[in-house]
Amino acid sequence: MKTFNERVAALRQWHESLLGRKNIPVEWGSDAPLASLCHAPNGIYEKYKYPILTADHTPLEWRYDFSERDNPHLMQRIMINATLNSGAMKWDGPSPLGTSGQRYVLVVRVEGADRKSFFAVAESPNGIDNFRFWPEPITMPEAPDDTAEEGLNPATNVYDMRLTRHEDGWIYGVFCAERHDDSRPGDLSAATATAGIARTKDLVTWERLPDLKSRSQQRNVVLHPEFVDADGKPITHHPSPTTQKYYAFYTRPQDGFIDTGSGGGIGWALVGDITHAEVCDEQIIYSRRYHTITEVKNGEGPHPLKTPRGWLHLAHGVRATADGLRYVLYMYMTALDDPTHVIARPGGYFLVPEGDEYLGDVMNVAFANGWLMDDDGRVLIYYASADTRMHVAVSTVDRLIDYCMNTPEDGYFTAASVENIKALVEKNRRCAKQK
Amino acid sequence: MKTFNERVAALRQWHESLLGRKNIPVEWGSDAPLASLCHAPNGIYEKYKYPILTADHTPLEWRYDFSERDNPHLMQRIMINATLNSGAMKWDGPSPLGTSGQRYVLVVRVEGADRKSFFAVAESPNGIDNFRFWPEPITMPEAPDDTAEEGLNPATNVYDMRLTRHEDGWIYGVFCAERHDDSRPGDLSAATATAGIARTKDLVTWERLPDLKSRSQQRNVVLHPEFVDADGKPITHHPSPTTQKYYAFYTRPQDGFIDTGSGGGIGWALVGDITHAEVCDEQIIYSRRYHTITEVKNGEGPHPLKTPRGWLHLAHGVRATADGLRYVLYMYMTALDDPTHVIARPGGYFLVPEGDEYLGDVMNVAFANGWLMDDDGRVLIYYASADTRMHVAVSTVDRLIDYCMNTPEDGYFTAASVENIKALVEKNRRCAKQK
Repeated sequence: MKTFNERVAALRQWHESLLGRKNIPVEWGSDAPLASLCHAPNGIYEKYKYPILTADHTPLEWRYDFSERDNPHLMQRIMINATLNSGAMKWDGPSPLGTSGQRYVLVVRVEGADRKSFFAVAESPNGIDNFRFWPEPITMPEAPDDTAEEGLNPATNVYDMRLTRHEDGWIYGVFCAERHDDSRPGDLSAATATAGIARTKDLVTWERLPDLKSRSQQRNVVLHPEFVDADGKPITHHPSPTTQKYYAFYTRPQDGFIDTGSGGGIGWALVGDITHAEVCDEQIIYSRRYHTITEVKNGEGPHPLKTPRGWLHLAHGVRATADGLRYVLYMYMTALDDPTHVIARPGGYFLVPEGDEYLGDVMNVAFANGWLMDDDGRVLIYYASADTRMHVAVSTVDRLIDYCMNTPEDGYFTAASVENIKALVEKNRRCAKQK
Repeated sequence: MKTFNERVAALRQWHESLLGRKNIPVEWGSDAPLASLCHAPNGIYEKYKYPILTADHTPLEWRYDFSERDNPHLMQRIMINATLNSGAMKWDGPSPLGTSGQRYVLVVRVEGADRKSFFAVAESPNGIDNFRFWPEPITMPEAPDDTAEEGLNPATNVYDMRLTRHEDGWIYGVFCAERHDDSRPGDLSAATATAGIARTKDLVTWERLPDLKSRSQQRNVVLHPEFVDADGKPITHHPSPTTQKYYAFYTRPQDGFIDTGSGGGIGWALVGDITHAEVCDEQIIYSRRYHTITEVKNGEGPHPLKTPRGWLHLAHGVRATADGLRYVLYMYMTALDDPTHVIARPGGYFLVPEGDEYLGDVMNVAFANGWLMDDDGRVLIYYASADTRMHVAVSTVDRLIDYCMNTPEDGYFTAASVENIKALVEKNRRCAKQK
């Protein structure tokens, strides 16, 4: 029988080996995860062999009481269930881990065995592996609310933070705050979803602002990184000093908590005062549509990346199956001079669950609310599988623009899909003849 | 081409090797099933590498016609689909297998290819592996019912038996009996669920009693192993010879078959005459609650284990996801002097599907209606994954009491969960400094 200290040492050694595990891209001929169940690489991005964050990656100090007197069996005192939908950004600021220089940080949705989610920062030196959590989860203040008791409106659950380094100088976290719908006291599952807004300079201390006011419930709300004018156009096009600056939000209006209503999709709303944010006017910029990947739900992922050719968007679409909903990722582009104008609409999905990724607490879900553009043009896409664990996929700005511009659009009818394939076959025939 | 007899011999050899396979605990550094998808061991219990019972474990004689003349292709004549939710107990009585001494028996829910479930006994010399079915499934008599045709009320399906060795000297099996709801003739899926009650001395011959009468539908009904008085208190506290003895049932009242209604949870009801059992008064001892693991359903597992510190309970909670319901196991404790008084309420789940366990007929389900305490303090927890196969997890009474007493309670808000983690981090900091 091993001593307590021997067991602690074995636990720490195992944990360090997990955290330090080198990640490997899934490339042609490589040893893919559950290879027989995965698609071959598509050339658009590379997935990686190992998840980058799992429940097992969370700090042992969150889960174990390391006092031999109080926990002689060395049992977990608090079980962590999952690490999922994470916001992402580059970071050269201070870290409680004592690291310095350019690092890659995620604000992770961590879910406990009690089903409650909260946020925690994890950082990596390369964005691909060696992710390590900061020592404590984020203490997120409750939302100020003049109409609530004691002026605060506590959330039962918070999740899916989008990080935006806004040109106003703050780093914003916009996330879903969920509370029981007390207007339906008999229904334990009745919930309301609103967009929580918080801001920080150091990712440790967060200032909570009032939740986004909106006629409908909101999830998947994302803050655009730049100010716009009253028409939603970039400020740089209007150099007048009297121009009023607005914050712009991507929204996903919902008529109810799960019921996404009879229309809708990805909305766009302007807000003058971020400290009292309210959606007054909401414009749908990317609609849901029958028999597409967005038939049931359609929501923005992380904020779009600015490129010389336009804003690159990563979003999610949801459809129903006989076995529940299926969440997949897709892309689109909007114009630099009008972020509400969609200029590229590649048909179908961009990234889906494959192999092991299918399996987890909510099967058949790929979800992303974090990505970033690196200095060398690489784009790191952070996605969760099955609401259970985090992965990375890697591409480049050039490849993603090419993908958006040159993938045929969805023709909304099977015949159009066949014509797209026949046109490609014909193009390849001509190309082969020319050789 | 092998002869018929050679094929039979190969089949039997393969079957014996399956039944005799040694099971291996999943420990640190061991080769876990689908290791990359499993949590590391939590110290609270150990799971085992192999399921203990699968459809393949059922006797070949149930499935094959071994007459070469009648079945020259050696095909299965009756296919078995799954072996799941099993009651459990120690057993030193006679066995149709001719074994003797202390053994571990399960009364298994066996499901055929026709979707009908029935009960069958399987026994093992150690509780961990080498489970072997008794030669014939249990012949369960139909429920006596004065109001029904011919005095009997045949069940379309029976499942999930809880075994209770009651102090009245009988072994009881309480299970769900399902029948079509003929008041809704047009709806093929309309069913009624009641608690069937049967008792036996030898696990072979069962005396069927009338089903439990109840205002609402009932599943997951469990018989407490001791008599109680009219107040639900242990008889031992009231030595008067005139004290009326009652049977006590854990219940899960339901307003409809699948609709678990607007409230409820695990109930407690007293019954004077077990041969005409009726729920007159039902007290909820563990409620369902918004945004916990029991939001949608909350039901007792097997009957609680008596320990010097209180009754140890194993139960299941159900929540909704975008991909259907998720069933997980949790624990709680009640007082010895008042089995309706919850004295320990560890937050969150205790055991969930992991890796391969996610996969099966009903994904994302861990369910247990059988466990037992061994003479050496070990606790063998028998759980089914994905309504498909049976597993064992092993702990000890000491560890389970420690788990129940020292796991933080669910604070019902994300902020409370974060505070629990921060308090543990702080305790570990202090502990580290003292070294």
